[in-house]
Amino acid sequence: MNFSRRWTDLEPIGRAASGGYRRFAWTSEDSELREWFEDQVYGLGLTLTLDRAGNQWAWWGDPDEAPGIVTGSHLDSVPDGGAFDGPLGVVSALSAVEALKAEGFQPSRPIGVVNFGDEEGARFGVACAGSRIITGALSPERAQSLKDTEGTSLVEAMEDAGQNPDYLGRDEETLNRIGAFVELHVEQGKALATDEYDAAIGVGTAVWPHGRWRFDFPGEANHAGTTRLVDRDDPMLAYASTVLAARQFAAQHQAVATFGKLAVEPNGVNAIPSLVRAWLDARAPQEKDVKALLQELTASAEEFGATVSEESWTGNTLFDPDLAGRLSKLLDGAPLLGTGAGHDAGILATAGISTAMLFVRNPTGKSHTPSEFAEEADCLAGVEALTTVLRELAA
Amino acid sequence: MNFSRRWTDLEPIGRAASGGYRRFAWTSEDSELREWFEDQVYGLGLTLTLDRAGNQWAWWGDPDEAPGIVTGSHLDSVPDGGAFDGPLGVVSALSAVEALKAEGFQPSRPIGVVNFGDEEGARFGVACAGSRIITGALSPERAQSLKDTEGTSLVEAMEDAGQNPDYLGRDEETLNRIGAFVELHVEQGKALATDEYDAAIGVGTAVWPHGRWRFDFPGEANHAGTTRLVDRDDPMLAYASTVLAARQFAAQHQAVATFGKLAVEPNGVNAIPSLVRAWLDARAPQEKDVKALLQELTASAEEFGATVSEESWTGNTLFDPDLAGRLSKLLDGAPLLGTGAGHDAGILATAGISTAMLFVRNPTGKSHTPSEFAEEADCLAGVEALTTVLRELAA
Repeated sequence: MNFSRRWTDLEPIGRAASGGYRRFAWTSEDSELREWFEDQVYGLGLTLTLDRAGNQWAWWGDPDEAPGIVTGSHLDSVPDGGAFDGPLGVVSALSAVEALKAEGFQPSRPIGVVNFGDEEGARFGVACAGSRIITGALSPERAQSLKDTEGTSLVEAMEDAGQNPDYLGRDEETLNRIGAFVELHVEQGKALATDEYDAAIGVGTAVWPHGRWRFDFPGEANHAGTTRLVDRDDPMLAYASTVLAARQFAAQHQAVATFGKLAVEPNGVNAIPSLVRAWLDARAPQEKDVKALLQELTASAEEFGATVSEESWTGNTLFDPDLAGRLSKLLDGAPLLGTGAGHDAGILATAGISTAMLFVRNPTGKSHTPSEFAEEADCLAGVEALTTVLRELAA
Repeated sequence: MNFSRRWTDLEPIGRAASGGYRRFAWTSEDSELREWFEDQVYGLGLTLTLDRAGNQWAWWGDPDEAPGIVTGSHLDSVPDGGAFDGPLGVVSALSAVEALKAEGFQPSRPIGVVNFGDEEGARFGVACAGSRIITGALSPERAQSLKDTEGTSLVEAMEDAGQNPDYLGRDEETLNRIGAFVELHVEQGKALATDEYDAAIGVGTAVWPHGRWRFDFPGEANHAGTTRLVDRDDPMLAYASTVLAARQFAAQHQAVATFGKLAVEPNGVNAIPSLVRAWLDARAPQEKDVKALLQELTASAEEFGATVSEESWTGNTLFDPDLAGRLSKLLDGAPLLGTGAGHDAGILATAGISTAMLFVRNPTGKSHTPSEFAEEADCLAGVEALTTVLRELAA
């Protein structure tokens, strides 16, 4: 079975000592993943195109003849992420195309498989950077100014990877090629695994409003042993209070809020920090709740002298309800569900493209961790579901 | 004036974008500093020896003929540290030897200048590693097991720097060569700059009890957007509570306590951390106060499932009171004072060596920061004081 072969091919690329993956945009690991994708494309007799952001597109049929049915996902990961988040959608898409070819299916319109770059935003801080750039949700100026923690810019990183960053920006040609987009993804909660749903496959209806904010807490570096408590301006205390406040405000607003990433300067055991920089991820089913949480937390952090800047924001995103309903019917009444996780599918939906998602059951609900997992039988059910969907939409 | 030339020579080595220094043990910057020291040694017609830990010793006279009078300090820095902490003692020592040679002084016993390695412990976590190894305060087994945050061991780092790590351990031959040790250092508080003292030079009497502890807060990595608050095991909350508790306990016990260094895993914006590892630096004039603070904070952190391990501990360290009194008299009644900062001099004093320190006035009291500073006139007064001390002790 070629699904398994593809899965096995990918396993060693970017694998870290943790057992999880460190596959960041425009690194050597990313290049290896892109080469792997290219090999698959040629192996299936498809045509490869690149868009202005460097996302890879594989086409069955001439993409400029009619708007196509596109599927796919991403191959990058969060730091120490799991094997499924992203790759499952790409591998399933390639395997579905292969299945359709094997059965002699003749698509009435082009079918595309996409590998979106930098979906996780692990390196440059902006999630879904690849799809945001081509839809214009991320401006070329802002994209060009993005830097990783080493100070390398997105432009330099693309050049280092042998890509051309000169055309970053909204890509009408590519957008016109997408008649509909269906992204398959491992579920990142465990709704499908509960007794309520108990299904291998679900259909996505919406992405919760979500965003990322950078909190800079400035302090005064000084010796940890010789500076009296009263003489200190220690930003770690302000940060600690803000972490606890974030949890409290999140609970009050039916939201989730997480400080998962930190950079401390100078980060020495015997030095009071001069700066604590922390990133907040906040989401909720209702947009007003995320806004209220942010407003209260910003006010609280500003009292400590912090500055808060928005790094990304995505409002409530509804997928195409007609398409979602059609897919659910087609898949024997697969359950409809929303998600707290952002996806390229959400970016395309916001850009006005008819979009839906398929979720594959996650028995533990764990994601963004090496222990992220889906049963092989459920993954194969996902390929079958996606094959059914493509066969229907491209008939 | 050769003091200025030496100072200017050192300025560019390991200078970071912050304007501060990143001079860590057994790095290429460290090698450059060691080569500079070697050049100075040969330029002054001294003999260079290395001890079992790779510390550099410059000798005027045969060090095995009689126990010598030794001065010196260290050249490494904390991350984004200042120019004075360490280098001032080494440059002053070399300049004092030069002044004695220039006036035709004939020492009755050997005079030594030492460059201790890894005083700040910025890379491997143990402060004063160089002096701790040769006195046996840090066992060879423990030294060999030290690793930096990249996973490189001290042994590998020494080998990479062209040094021999096979003989790490207590070094009787070197210890027998030290009849007395006087370390000159920039003051790291601002006592000498206050009206109470108002003096360019002070004489150190004691180092406060101080130590470092590692706090590991384990959690469960998971997706920041899809994991409900009630399903989370987020170690950042436990860490935040512990930071606030540390400040409260420090105030209660007339101590200082600092969380200045952190490592978060996986450190992704949209991932709940699987681990927050934080280092505590705690000190107080009284040993019982540090112990009480630690006991209370450990109990509090353990309630969150944290593990606490001691990385270093130095009890109250008294310098040789006779020597300190003698130096104060010699230097026109220079004030006697204790310090919250640890020094190699403290390690040697604990090992039973007759030891004292000279402090040079720090007008702002700032240290471990790029803005650390001493007036040139005070630095030159330091060289003069050290010259006077060596002339007296080696007469």
